[in-house]
Amino acid sequence: MKYAVIGTGAIGAYYGAKLAYAGNDVHFLLHSDYDFVKENGLQIDSCDGSFHLSDPNIYHSTADMPACDVVIVALKTTNNRRLLPSLLTTLLQSQPLVLLIQNGIGVEADVQAMFPEAQLAAGLAFICSAKSEPGRVNHQCYGSINIGNYSCRDSARFAQLIAGLNEAGVKAAEVDYREARWKKAVWNMPFNGMTVALNTQTDRLLANEATRQLIYDQMLEVIGAAQALGVKDLDCTFADKMIESTLQMTPYSPSMKLDYDFHRPMEIEYIYTHPIAEARAAGFDMPKLAMLEAELRFIDENNKV
Amino acid sequence: MKYAVIGTGAIGAYYGAKLAYAGNDVHFLLHSDYDFVKENGLQIDSCDGSFHLSDPNIYHSTADMPACDVVIVALKTTNNRRLLPSLLTTLLQSQPLVLLIQNGIGVEADVQAMFPEAQLAAGLAFICSAKSEPGRVNHQCYGSINIGNYSCRDSARFAQLIAGLNEAGVKAAEVDYREARWKKAVWNMPFNGMTVALNTQTDRLLANEATRQLIYDQMLEVIGAAQALGVKDLDCTFADKMIESTLQMTPYSPSMKLDYDFHRPMEIEYIYTHPIAEARAAGFDMPKLAMLEAELRFIDENNKV
Repeated sequence: MKYAVIGTGAIGAYYGAKLAYAGNDVHFLLHSDYDFVKENGLQIDSCDGSFHLSDPNIYHSTADMPACDVVIVALKTTNNRRLLPSLLTTLLQSQPLVLLIQNGIGVEADVQAMFPEAQLAAGLAFICSAKSEPGRVNHQCYGSINIGNYSCRDSARFAQLIAGLNEAGVKAAEVDYREARWKKAVWNMPFNGMTVALNTQTDRLLANEATRQLIYDQMLEVIGAAQALGVKDLDCTFADKMIESTLQMTPYSPSMKLDYDFHRPMEIEYIYTHPIAEARAAGFDMPKLAMLEAELRFIDENNKV
Repeated sequence: MKYAVIGTGAIGAYYGAKLAYAGNDVHFLLHSDYDFVKENGLQIDSCDGSFHLSDPNIYHSTADMPACDVVIVALKTTNNRRLLPSLLTTLLQSQPLVLLIQNGIGVEADVQAMFPEAQLAAGLAFICSAKSEPGRVNHQCYGSINIGNYSCRDSARFAQLIAGLNEAGVKAAEVDYREARWKKAVWNMPFNGMTVALNTQTDRLLANEATRQLIYDQMLEVIGAAQALGVKDLDCTFADKMIESTLQMTPYSPSMKLDYDFHRPMEIEYIYTHPIAEARAAGFDMPKLAMLEAELRFIDENNKV
């Protein structure tokens, strides 16, 4: 299988490099890191074993990339509207499977609206990784990816993708798209925003009695919304599990907190606005997460460099 | 009339000095500023005309103060539980009228529980003033005070207090205790906490579309709670009025924001916890203000010097 990786950051570079290191034909789109990677290759410092790609296939422009079977999109969603139309148009001519490894809810619907014929899958990465410097990813822990079929008509290719990832040492499994997105939101919606709103990390939010209860209440809002939208197998015991597993984690800054710390735009649109609007349309209100969204809009506006 | 002032800060010193300057017999309890005021007197820099008290009656201890007709309590509510039992016991022997010029909802009930026989009135000050340095108050604007009768049995003295204030150039009027406290909360609950949570001022909260809507929604929560508790003459038009009048104000840091900036404990208990609990007991939920309370608890814990 031939893979294209659009968005060679902490997530895209990791999964792409794992696939390439296992012998797949992987083609990376690079922007600011292009010259560095051309000279030095791509380094993955990983808890599962570090490795180096000395001469990966890298490109300045998607126009130069070959036709691929799978296009992995791992951009920040804040870039989708501005960049995807130009980045994907050529790559989609060969009707690849497009795996969107992006945060939040509503991404697939919006990308589908841009490209009605595209075959989309949603990738939910459970991974702690960061781009530590140009051409270098620090993969701290976890690394599995759940994949939901959104609009992929080629079921053989969908299965090949999951098999290919597993063969490359990435634990990948098919999941129900909607259920997976909402389950992930149970953790993502409270912790991404609250670590920014209170400029802190996961452990301190849970150490304070008031914010621990608030996080729990926000999780119940997500669970209630998901239930209102027909997601099954999700009740308040899942919130207890999420709190428990977060207490076991080392202090953690979610992706939105890193975006905030580095004065990048935050993914408010898909992590908050879309799911809150979807729930409201189904008659379910999420007042505390709507308040968090408003606070984040204020913080985002004042965080521009 | 003989007045005692407990809490000679931006509020207590201002109203006490106005009364003293008009010729009333006023006795001030001072703590850290005692020596300075002994030497230099009390200076009120005021938009309504500055003045100086060269030799006010000041005390280190309430034990040395004379019996008074009115005791003005203008401490931060965060000191009530710790200080009021010792400060008020002696002063209350002469059965004075106690005017609590303090923030929030539920203060009178708690003070009454400490002193079941006390005659309490609630003072709602509409004033921008700050203690700029020892013995010096900067009164920027406004200055009126609404007074609600909570448990004063001596109606003549209650009337005298209001008359005395007006004679001293302070616009004072009797209001319905419950209605006044809740109406003030419509402004206080959103702006006090939100300026802290987002480390900003009133004008910027209203300049951002998302937080302006959030402030409005929080005002509606207070109005809904007040209605649930039987307060009349209060509907959503009052929120519109509050937003409009805040837009006319110069950028403003409410008292809780100043407490935060100076690393003092914040008055979370009476500005948030009590009114939210009162409303909940009446079956009305205030989710956004409850979230704000939780954020403030976290911020307060991490703001200690």
